[in-house]
Amino acid sequence: MNHPPLLADIRAAAERIRPYAHRTPALTCAALDRLAGARLFFKCENFQKVGAFKFRGACNTVMSLSPEEAARGVATHSSGNHAQALALAAKIRGIPAHIVMPRTSPAVKKAAVEGYGATITFCEPTLQAREEILAKVVEATGATFVHPYNDYRVIAGQGTAALELLEAVPELEIIMTPVGGGGLLSGTALTVSYLSPQTRVIAAEPAGADDACRSLQEGRILPSVNPKTIADGLLTSLGDKTFPIIQQHVERIVTVGEEAIIAAMRLVWERMKIVIEPSSAVPLAALWEKKLDVEGKRVGIILSGGNVDLGKLPWPG
Amino acid sequence: MNHPPLLADIRAAAERIRPYAHRTPALTCAALDRLAGARLFFKCENFQKVGAFKFRGACNTVMSLSPEEAARGVATHSSGNHAQALALAAKIRGIPAHIVMPRTSPAVKKAAVEGYGATITFCEPTLQAREEILAKVVEATGATFVHPYNDYRVIAGQGTAALELLEAVPELEIIMTPVGGGGLLSGTALTVSYLSPQTRVIAAEPAGADDACRSLQEGRILPSVNPKTIADGLLTSLGDKTFPIIQQHVERIVTVGEEAIIAAMRLVWERMKIVIEPSSAVPLAALWEKKLDVEGKRVGIILSGGNVDLGKLPWPG
Repeated sequence: MNHPPLLADIRAAAERIRPYAHRTPALTCAALDRLAGARLFFKCENFQKVGAFKFRGACNTVMSLSPEEAARGVATHSSGNHAQALALAAKIRGIPAHIVMPRTSPAVKKAAVEGYGATITFCEPTLQAREEILAKVVEATGATFVHPYNDYRVIAGQGTAALELLEAVPELEIIMTPVGGGGLLSGTALTVSYLSPQTRVIAAEPAGADDACRSLQEGRILPSVNPKTIADGLLTSLGDKTFPIIQQHVERIVTVGEEAIIAAMRLVWERMKIVIEPSSAVPLAALWEKKLDVEGKRVGIILSGGNVDLGKLPWPG
Repeated sequence: MNHPPLLADIRAAAERIRPYAHRTPALTCAALDRLAGARLFFKCENFQKVGAFKFRGACNTVMSLSPEEAARGVATHSSGNHAQALALAAKIRGIPAHIVMPRTSPAVKKAAVEGYGATITFCEPTLQAREEILAKVVEATGATFVHPYNDYRVIAGQGTAALELLEAVPELEIIMTPVGGGGLLSGTALTVSYLSPQTRVIAAEPAGADDACRSLQEGRILPSVNPKTIADGLLTSLGDKTFPIIQQHVERIVTVGEEAIIAAMRLVWERMKIVIEPSSAVPLAALWEKKLDVEGKRVGIILSGGNVDLGKLPWPG
């Protein structure tokens, strides 16, 4: 796919992943509504396969490969949710998945990827090493590289979460997502622009990793340099495919502090009784910090995932 | 109500609480199914109002009071989920709630009950002190005492969880609940006996608080003496209203160890991405310990609640 996804592409992605992905619920919580002074609808991608929205994009991409491409497998570099998502999607299609992962990755993440039958190639924990090793793997295997976000097939897949949310909850005035590389945000923004153009798309980002916010202000992609945040899904820079979509369709990116992220995360666990990862809590943290006027509004929030080490929680134990 | 709830009573309870209680989802999890070798359906009462099934019984009782009774308010002794449930039900009906609570109760529990507008009377942390103070409160106010479980209106209310589960999930071969005082278990057993008599009702109990298991074996109510378990919702003894129902309609009560309870709790958090309290994990712990042959069976499990101190989790932090 060599153009930003059209509505038909996002609908096709939804059809393609339907047999494999969960149609996740949109939950509400009276206590959080009272705190926010708004009506909040949480799209629970923490309940998605592999515990994150990433399965949508990975699955759409794997399922759209031609038989010839598929037979050679897929490859990516990631130690996070995208690695697991691609490994599972490949397993479902019955094709090889090659994951390049830093040696320093936590054992639990290695085990999860191996559990889906993927082949791991370890690399030094630098961007350069990662890209070099990946290039070698792709050359040796002929596998298709599936980027975690800077790929129109991935973007179309991520856009299916908003598609489901808009179908389940009418008349949303605002939809919020976190932003890292921009796959979820750009997919969401496209879906909303096609189906509910009056709905405002607003992203939230940790102040300690605010490259997307600054990129939008400067009008060019600024790299994410030494990001520092607990929201470890949001460390990456925007890509040349996600950025223009975000420029065109996203109203604003607000930044939030670490304390607000942790407070919002804990609030969701305590009040909604669901497990979300720090990255998921970033949009709610923006409401917590009163970065937006949502008084009386209907706000959709995409909770991006729920993969968190229960032995290392960010509050006193 | 002076007789064990009939099907009509449970259906009436369901109608009565419908405007106020959540119809909670029945969630499934492929990973847990694989581990158990069965098809598991989790009725998520951790998503219920106040975070526990207790709201069903308390709400049914409060909403069935005559206007004269209601005007005098309701009272109970509890520091747990029942106290919050009764306080919220009373707040909804706009009547007073008097809660007798040990001085030693955690501040967070006091705050929760006060947050619903209830009046707290503190007592020494003994059964005798609790009952004496409660009697005084009832005498002074004319409030209706609502027992946490040994009350047919409460039992009818708790039975509505199984009613919803049977409506949502056909052909369950087994339904499991934890057992403390037996309110949830007896209500579940009655509902199942009326609507799906071929479904086996099996309860699970911590080995460190196994009075219900021993009571069923001996044919009489044995008190819960010095119970010791992390499942702090299951410390109480059966009552003379819950016990005969359990004797008649429950096939078996299995006991489980503390390690299995903690492992099952963590498994649900990690795999299902939902927050449950230790008491909720007890039935799954029974499967974990292979106390039951569920191979290939369709098993409903009622997750009783999700109120847990996130700062004190039962695994290394």
